[in-house]
Amino acid sequence: MSSIPKASDIPRGFSFSAAACGLKKSGLDLGLLISETPAAAAAMFTKNRVQAAPVRVSKAHLRRSRGRMHAIIVNSGNANCCTGPDGAVAAAKTTRTVASELGELQPLRILVCSTGVIGVPLRFEKILKAIPALVSGRSGRPQAFAQLTRAIMTTDTRPKWKAASCRIGSKTVRILGCCKGAGMIQPNMATMLAFLATDAAISLPLLSRALRSAVADTFNAITVDGDTSTNDTVAILANGESGAPKITATTAGFKAFVAALEKVCRMLALKIVEDGEGAQRVVEVEVRQAPSDRAAIQIARTIANSPLVKTALAGADPNWGRILAAAGRAGVPFDFESVDICLAGMLVCKKGGEHPFSETAAHKKMRAKYVPIVVDMHSGKGHARMWTCDFTGEYVHINASYRT
Amino acid sequence: MSSIPKASDIPRGFSFSAAACGLKKSGLDLGLLISETPAAAAAMFTKNRVQAAPVRVSKAHLRRSRGRMHAIIVNSGNANCCTGPDGAVAAAKTTRTVASELGELQPLRILVCSTGVIGVPLRFEKILKAIPALVSGRSGRPQAFAQLTRAIMTTDTRPKWKAASCRIGSKTVRILGCCKGAGMIQPNMATMLAFLATDAAISLPLLSRALRSAVADTFNAITVDGDTSTNDTVAILANGESGAPKITATTAGFKAFVAALEKVCRMLALKIVEDGEGAQRVVEVEVRQAPSDRAAIQIARTIANSPLVKTALAGADPNWGRILAAAGRAGVPFDFESVDICLAGMLVCKKGGEHPFSETAAHKKMRAKYVPIVVDMHSGKGHARMWTCDFTGEYVHINASYRT
Repeated sequence: MSSIPKASDIPRGFSFSAAACGLKKSGLDLGLLISETPAAAAAMFTKNRVQAAPVRVSKAHLRRSRGRMHAIIVNSGNANCCTGPDGAVAAAKTTRTVASELGELQPLRILVCSTGVIGVPLRFEKILKAIPALVSGRSGRPQAFAQLTRAIMTTDTRPKWKAASCRIGSKTVRILGCCKGAGMIQPNMATMLAFLATDAAISLPLLSRALRSAVADTFNAITVDGDTSTNDTVAILANGESGAPKITATTAGFKAFVAALEKVCRMLALKIVEDGEGAQRVVEVEVRQAPSDRAAIQIARTIANSPLVKTALAGADPNWGRILAAAGRAGVPFDFESVDICLAGMLVCKKGGEHPFSETAAHKKMRAKYVPIVVDMHSGKGHARMWTCDFTGEYVHINASYRT
Repeated sequence: MSSIPKASDIPRGFSFSAAACGLKKSGLDLGLLISETPAAAAAMFTKNRVQAAPVRVSKAHLRRSRGRMHAIIVNSGNANCCTGPDGAVAAAKTTRTVASELGELQPLRILVCSTGVIGVPLRFEKILKAIPALVSGRSGRPQAFAQLTRAIMTTDTRPKWKAASCRIGSKTVRILGCCKGAGMIQPNMATMLAFLATDAAISLPLLSRALRSAVADTFNAITVDGDTSTNDTVAILANGESGAPKITATTAGFKAFVAALEKVCRMLALKIVEDGEGAQRVVEVEVRQAPSDRAAIQIARTIANSPLVKTALAGADPNWGRILAAAGRAGVPFDFESVDICLAGMLVCKKGGEHPFSETAAHKKMRAKYVPIVVDMHSGKGHARMWTCDFTGEYVHINASYRT
């Protein structure tokens, strides 16, 4: 995939902008996503008890504007979290300044997001100063979107975006999304921001339902390090500019829209895992025939977060015993002598014991970019799938030196 | 502390032995702890659903012998876990052979423990062959005990032992313990084995109660990587050979015994954290004034296991935002704007926001061998303390190359 979408990927009526306002030492650190006409909006936020000021402001705006949004302003380089009353003032002033420059009478129609270090006061005067040029410089060109994808990066090594479309009535509806995230990644959700723009016309309840459904099996099914951030936000704006008939019921059109949205979310979520701090490979953990879906999720999550499993994956070591031991501490009762494990397509554990396999062949297969792990419990109908990455010395290096 | 206890530290009536039987590539890998007269015994085992054959055999022996034990046989180099019916046979045959060499008519009076890699068949014929010399070579000398402490090591870089004594009646009662453990360490309990020998005379219910009480705040309050092993065992043998009056009620003598036992367990537990794979420092996480003890434990555990907190500690980075963010995802409701955090004795966060401090001074203090973190929630009377270590590239290196 090229690093810039095609002009035809851009949903109608959206424009984008980015700037370097000086919060990062260098590079773009301020972005804007605008729907030129009021859009229906839905969003999901971190479940961490510690919530950043922009999360609290955005939640309030979404509620009080009854889901009508005009734009999203986002900065990287500082999370504006644990910054006390000043942090709330910073987030509020930022939305007011964007509204005023856009000629929007209601600052409530602006969402605000931040990502970066926690607990350091946000020098928001830098943001306020940059907003006029940010707003006036907006554009619907792919290059402008590409700049936005870069402005939200922190430890990300590359921008992440995905486009999809579907037919509703006789019209094409486009969905374009971008996200950031590499560390502090754990459902629900991750140190991640994801912004989705669509020119579909859709009622607010159905937009919200579509977003929840798409996020459950995508952004909420990834983990890099088990840490949940204080700033996570996934937001979607739907402005109806495609001219397609409005989705107001769970028709075929709704299903097509959800499928396209899920496709975008899945690709974005996998890009986050792929770019996991220090990661060499993406690992899919699938738990089959568990006592229940809930048990399957619990087991998949425990395996996907186990440092011993993740370091074995870094060494491409077919150490299935660590996988079974992680499952055993997931807090779910099961008979481990019924469990089979397939590693990178090879059966390595049968009924809780070793199944003869070639260590050399397994080691070679596990050095791939994508390694599937299938844990079959043979004890019910529960199923879950989760994506993680391996745990390398580079992760430690990145995170032991993030600030100092 | 010297690496060998004094002769006066050895509880009366105990002897020890160790051998290199070839399960490890080199070095001692088989150990024996014997009470020359039948001892009251209590033990605690892993709560992992996946339990190694020796754990299952030892549990059955303890139950069926009604807590009368003669000896503990232990091997390193192989966990005898996920090894199917052959694993159970190996553990049972091992106990039978030890019993027969000891002239013990009841193999039930032998406990068996294993530690090492999971899922690889145990070549127990090597153990059986070594047992006669192991038994006949036993001795009550400190050197013999020191060899036992080495025979149980896996990724441990040093042997771990601790002695204590107390007065009961007019007599001295001795407690001597050793343990192993460095990775896969998480309550309850850890990839750890701990063996405690005492010449106290104590009733079985009180011995069991003393052990549970001592383990709760020591072995069950440490974590290295959040992974719980399949083989964890803490066992104590009390043979009454000190000649001190028998403890049969919760008298002053019982309290003195529990205090001495707790002292031994705490030192052993801290030695495990200190020797955590790749660890540079021990970190004490104390949560004060939480809504409840349970909430305090949950928060302390989440902080102590957070990869982002632990990598920041590796870099001696006073990144209190990660500590607060980890607390926020512990699943406990609280108002983060009431929280104060002290790092290495410096107040760095006040009411959920930054409290001005010198980064340079904090960085310097955090490079110590022992770093205390105090999280004060100001929202109740709950309290918990947990010990962890920092998370370095060396941990990844050790665990990515353990087998391959």
